[in-house]
Amino acid sequence: MDSSLIERLINDISKLPGLGRRSAQRIALYLLKNKERTLLPLTETFKESYKNILECSICGNIDMIDPCSICSNNKRDKNSICVVEDVSDLWTFERIGFYRGLYHILGGSLSAINGMGTDELNLKKLLERINQGETKEIILALSTTMEGETTSHVIIDKLEEFKNLTVTRLAQGIPIGGEVHYLDENTLNTAFQSRKKII
Amino acid sequence: MDSSLIERLINDISKLPGLGRRSAQRIALYLLKNKERTLLPLTETFKESYKNILECSICGNIDMIDPCSICSNNKRDKNSICVVEDVSDLWTFERIGFYRGLYHILGGSLSAINGMGTDELNLKKLLERINQGETKEIILALSTTMEGETTSHVIIDKLEEFKNLTVTRLAQGIPIGGEVHYLDENTLNTAFQSRKKII
Repeated sequence: MDSSLIERLINDISKLPGLGRRSAQRIALYLLKNKERTLLPLTETFKESYKNILECSICGNIDMIDPCSICSNNKRDKNSICVVEDVSDLWTFERIGFYRGLYHILGGSLSAINGMGTDELNLKKLLERINQGETKEIILALSTTMEGETTSHVIIDKLEEFKNLTVTRLAQGIPIGGEVHYLDENTLNTAFQSRKKII
Repeated sequence: MDSSLIERLINDISKLPGLGRRSAQRIALYLLKNKERTLLPLTETFKESYKNILECSICGNIDMIDPCSICSNNKRDKNSICVVEDVSDLWTFERIGFYRGLYHILGGSLSAINGMGTDELNLKKLLERINQGETKEIILALSTTMEGETTSHVIIDKLEEFKNLTVTRLAQGIPIGGEVHYLDENTLNTAFQSRKKII
């Protein structure tokens, strides 16, 4: 660790989410051990990604085109917008593939600790999209954490002024495959309160 | 995950040691969310590292100069070479700082599973260094795993022909701060067999 550039490499890698100093060291050594086969192609991918991957100006998704391939796809249902916290949530929906509407990426949830206030969320653009009049349903698909719940409430507040707009949220209850005796108190309570009549 | 470049970015990141697909996705999104502040400087560091970080032609260490700053440091004890598996082991020695001799990086240990045979290890150069005649002691500082032990034995075999060369290995026993009732069978057995006379 004499050399400042090696130190900078380790330091830069250790800033990536989920990595500590030890794992950054390991990755740096891996990259330096066989530079042609590892460091060079990764640098190339980074350069191309920097140049070619864009944020969709409509929904906040990332893609190589703007508007993104979902917003510009005429087969998608333009009447429905699913509001998610992050692009990874959109990916999860798309991987499963049952949803055919549009998305809106908030870019996080309200959190005083992480410095996320309403201005940091991509909310203004959501209201603009609804104002354009095509939207019939907003589906809130946020986390059921404290932050996600607060964010949902703030969004619901802002959407109340729109007449003829349906606002829904994902159902809460026992996850499929979940065992009742392993459920936490809140989930069990919610599942009980929202119980459905069968007969 | 529609876009092939985003897919390639995630894929390239997931090949780094210790990372799976989920963590690669998280890192990719982190890099794309604020490209100027994250992706751009990391790419720059990668480019500079590719150009400026070299492998020392004597010992196999990595540095910005060749021979490395340890091999070319006249204050280091040229009579002693500490043989380690990897650069990270050298870093550990240097961080603690008690050792003032030279190093030799093997680049791994013998392992049939990982395709590491004697030809893959940086052994030939070690013998060349010893042949130059300055070396008085070789300190084997390899892991006490099966692979490390096998590697040590192979090296010891090759060093037996050198007259006037002392070959040592790190002591094996209870780690400092270790509790006897937590020790594994092998460590306790080794520590017992190598017990030292006190009085």
